[in-house]
Amino acid sequence: MAEELFKEFREHSVSEFFRKNAAMLGYTGKIRSLTTIVHEGVTNAIDAAEEAGVLPKVNVIIKRVNEEPEHFKIVIEDNAAGIPKEYIPNVFGKMLAGTKLHRYMQSRGQQGIGISGSVMYGQITSGKPTTVVTSTGNGEIVRADVMIDVDRNEGKILNEEKFKGKWQGTRVEIDAKDVSYMRSRYGPFNYLRMTAIANPHTHITFVEPDGTLTVFERGTDKVPERPKPMPLHPWGIMSDDLLVLAKHTKGRTVASFLSAELSRVSKRKAEEVCRLAGISPNKKPSELTWEEAERIVSAFKQVKLYAPPTSGLRPIGAVDIENGMRKILNPEFTYSITRPPKVYRGGLPFIVEVGIAYGGNAGKVAEGKGEGEEGENEVGMELVRFANRAPLIFDQGGCAITAAIRSIEWRRYGVDPATAPITLFVNVVSAYVPYTSAGKQSIADEPEVLNEIRAAVMEAARELRRFLYRRIRLKERQERAGIFEQYLPIIAKKAAVLAGVKEPDIKLLLKKVTGVEHAKEGEN
Amino acid sequence: MAEELFKEFREHSVSEFFRKNAAMLGYTGKIRSLTTIVHEGVTNAIDAAEEAGVLPKVNVIIKRVNEEPEHFKIVIEDNAAGIPKEYIPNVFGKMLAGTKLHRYMQSRGQQGIGISGSVMYGQITSGKPTTVVTSTGNGEIVRADVMIDVDRNEGKILNEEKFKGKWQGTRVEIDAKDVSYMRSRYGPFNYLRMTAIANPHTHITFVEPDGTLTVFERGTDKVPERPKPMPLHPWGIMSDDLLVLAKHTKGRTVASFLSAELSRVSKRKAEEVCRLAGISPNKKPSELTWEEAERIVSAFKQVKLYAPPTSGLRPIGAVDIENGMRKILNPEFTYSITRPPKVYRGGLPFIVEVGIAYGGNAGKVAEGKGEGEEGENEVGMELVRFANRAPLIFDQGGCAITAAIRSIEWRRYGVDPATAPITLFVNVVSAYVPYTSAGKQSIADEPEVLNEIRAAVMEAARELRRFLYRRIRLKERQERAGIFEQYLPIIAKKAAVLAGVKEPDIKLLLKKVTGVEHAKEGEN
Repeated sequence: MAEELFKEFREHSVSEFFRKNAAMLGYTGKIRSLTTIVHEGVTNAIDAAEEAGVLPKVNVIIKRVNEEPEHFKIVIEDNAAGIPKEYIPNVFGKMLAGTKLHRYMQSRGQQGIGISGSVMYGQITSGKPTTVVTSTGNGEIVRADVMIDVDRNEGKILNEEKFKGKWQGTRVEIDAKDVSYMRSRYGPFNYLRMTAIANPHTHITFVEPDGTLTVFERGTDKVPERPKPMPLHPWGIMSDDLLVLAKHTKGRTVASFLSAELSRVSKRKAEEVCRLAGISPNKKPSELTWEEAERIVSAFKQVKLYAPPTSGLRPIGAVDIENGMRKILNPEFTYSITRPPKVYRGGLPFIVEVGIAYGGNAGKVAEGKGEGEEGENEVGMELVRFANRAPLIFDQGGCAITAAIRSIEWRRYGVDPATAPITLFVNVVSAYVPYTSAGKQSIADEPEVLNEIRAAVMEAARELRRFLYRRIRLKERQERAGIFEQYLPIIAKKAAVLAGVKEPDIKLLLKKVTGVEHAKEGEN
Repeated sequence: MAEELFKEFREHSVSEFFRKNAAMLGYTGKIRSLTTIVHEGVTNAIDAAEEAGVLPKVNVIIKRVNEEPEHFKIVIEDNAAGIPKEYIPNVFGKMLAGTKLHRYMQSRGQQGIGISGSVMYGQITSGKPTTVVTSTGNGEIVRADVMIDVDRNEGKILNEEKFKGKWQGTRVEIDAKDVSYMRSRYGPFNYLRMTAIANPHTHITFVEPDGTLTVFERGTDKVPERPKPMPLHPWGIMSDDLLVLAKHTKGRTVASFLSAELSRVSKRKAEEVCRLAGISPNKKPSELTWEEAERIVSAFKQVKLYAPPTSGLRPIGAVDIENGMRKILNPEFTYSITRPPKVYRGGLPFIVEVGIAYGGNAGKVAEGKGEGEEGENEVGMELVRFANRAPLIFDQGGCAITAAIRSIEWRRYGVDPATAPITLFVNVVSAYVPYTSAGKQSIADEPEVLNEIRAAVMEAARELRRFLYRRIRLKERQERAGIFEQYLPIIAKKAAVLAGVKEPDIKLLLKKVTGVEHAKEGEN
């Protein structure tokens, strides 16, 4: 019986797995699928430009193919360093492969799945390869058509040509069916708009299927500092991490291994830890046992160490968040904060940034419900989520950011979330954003991350409350002043008649009343 | 520059990917991680027993290791067909491998990731292998310690012993740290309780860390019909699916391939489709081009076909749902429905079942908020979600079931979800449940699935409304009857005194009034 049942035992490639479960990568619904392709292309483009140390310039074109209703070509072009020819098949055709997935560095992508997933989605819906045009700036431009061999999780090049030309960057053209274009909250336009808000150093042009060109100009011309790799900190690792590092290190002794692979660990500190753990500092790292690794991890908790480095993290910054919100929402009030770095799971650093905008165009627009989103009200407080500056548009319900916002008693801040014209902007920055799924649209609720988001939003909400109270008081004062203005002249006139004197000039008096009122405002 | 950057290009195994992103498999938070291990073991156990055609009997033991606070051994034992020795490394140590992932059959597991994920979680937190004891009933029992070689995504056996014994089944022992045990809504106890409700044919025993034994008895002794493989239906496939099938088929011509690999396609129908698509029915399947596949897919939409087969689907059934809810919740009112099969994406069949319970112990319990869940109120309507009878405990916010429930205007049904003592039970049955992530705790909102859940819940809600209105009318009637009973004797006495006659016997009259009222009830 068992033998019979196990005849069915098979193995799948990771590409085949995601082919069958494309929803896990965000390919669910026609609008979301199109936005997901744009998202993967654009995050790669900005990451690549930042790594190359240039101001990102991204061009996105979405055009219909053969006038078919649900068939589009999506073109995404960057001005980054280009891709050496020999890497093209693996960058675009192999999942779980890339330059980012093993480095401890803040980036939008981190899994080595995203763009290969888009190539696959194009391929399984249109049957067409993805066209890649790239040049490293050496005078030669390569143009290649890439498909994925799903059984083997390998990229293959169908056609390749080279031509001469002075250009540097990468252009990806994906042909996809079963997608549709809409200017809704869940469509590519809003995705790019949100990207522009969170990345004021990025120039984005967008051509919609009807030919409309939109340019999202830069808000700053400062070349962003390149994100820096940040080795793991001893407080954030488990025994298993330590053994994995030990297996691949170049350090020849445990002491040199610890100080080379972990942050904040000097050679002396490493020797102290070895002593505490009862391990010879000269032992070969590859010979460490599980028990020894556990002893090292717990010894690290007994020594003094600097907190994890956060110098490699690149938040947007409160000023740029505020400028972005003002430009787009034209609100009556804004407040932004970039909080100091915190750590979760002991030693993984992250930063939370929050912006709040009230009035103007802030708050949800009462538009039709988007495809692929929960049945929530479309008025009231709007939540705009980002992770490492990449917009999170989908899976809002399951995200730690949403949970943090929901856990706040908004009435205490004089706000009814169901009706208030508020836009809340939250960005979580980390080299290790704990996403809940490979689709990377939702952050797992690690307690420290959730609490930090909560604290940051409450700080912003307190400022909003102050503004709202001030506004109420101002309004009351204006009403009071209005009463004076309305009745003082009449009283003056009547009084003059009764007293049989000339009507006094009350302008000065009125001004005085207002002046006193203004002086009072300053006290509060 | 580009060459420099791409020196960092690496490839990861799927095990390494999920090691770094364990949250995607549900390993996030200490309670959830423990429940996830129980979930993976128990779904495998029940699936295996059903496949072997036996009544499932599952024993679960969770015990502390060395009195350490966050260190447990989780033991899950089934009475299924056992695992042939040579498959042990791959079943427990290789991700994306299994007997279920390529078959179109309803099962709780379907990815070939789950139990390997638990083995990995145990290994990376405790450093210990998973112990597997299994026998196919041939008189030989195998006991093996399995670990995962994460770099290669391969299982390896550390120790293996064989001994004689008459037993059949599999016992898995996972040693895990960084987990904690609680009897909360998110803990293993509630998981098993929900499993028992949805699987009345399954006998479950559970020993908690403090030694408490709980037995969830069977509600029925009927051996469940074995789930049947259901080939894909032509309406539910894309060109790409067709080419993948064509690549692996044994059919030698396109016509025989189509009728062999797809459901509801006779040889004659296949030939008709070839004719419509302008393709020779004798062509080799492996030579089909993308364009030809597209023509075949669209030709299938022009011919008459029976709807997709649904005979392989195994819903719980309205009677068993109702019995389960009555047993556990002791409600004033219940109503259950198993709706007829529907399809999504054109041809993927599914069934929605809904049960509603009102009063008694129905509704949320006002307990402390569980770890790893959104900040929702813990009173009011309780939602209990299942997919193929496996409880979905986490990621409620992002699930199509939640979205469907939220989209209903409950006031129309006389219900305030924030306070009503209601438990809603929803089970989605399919050979292809569209999960949003590899953690399989949330269903993607495919429009047809969402609408069907909505329709089913609304049907149940209408019945609830009828009950609530009847109850209100009954209460009014009782109040009215109360007034009669109170005042009629007094009126009769006073009237008799005034008229100077003997007081009449009003018992008959009172009875008549009540009788009339009862007759009226029947009319509505």
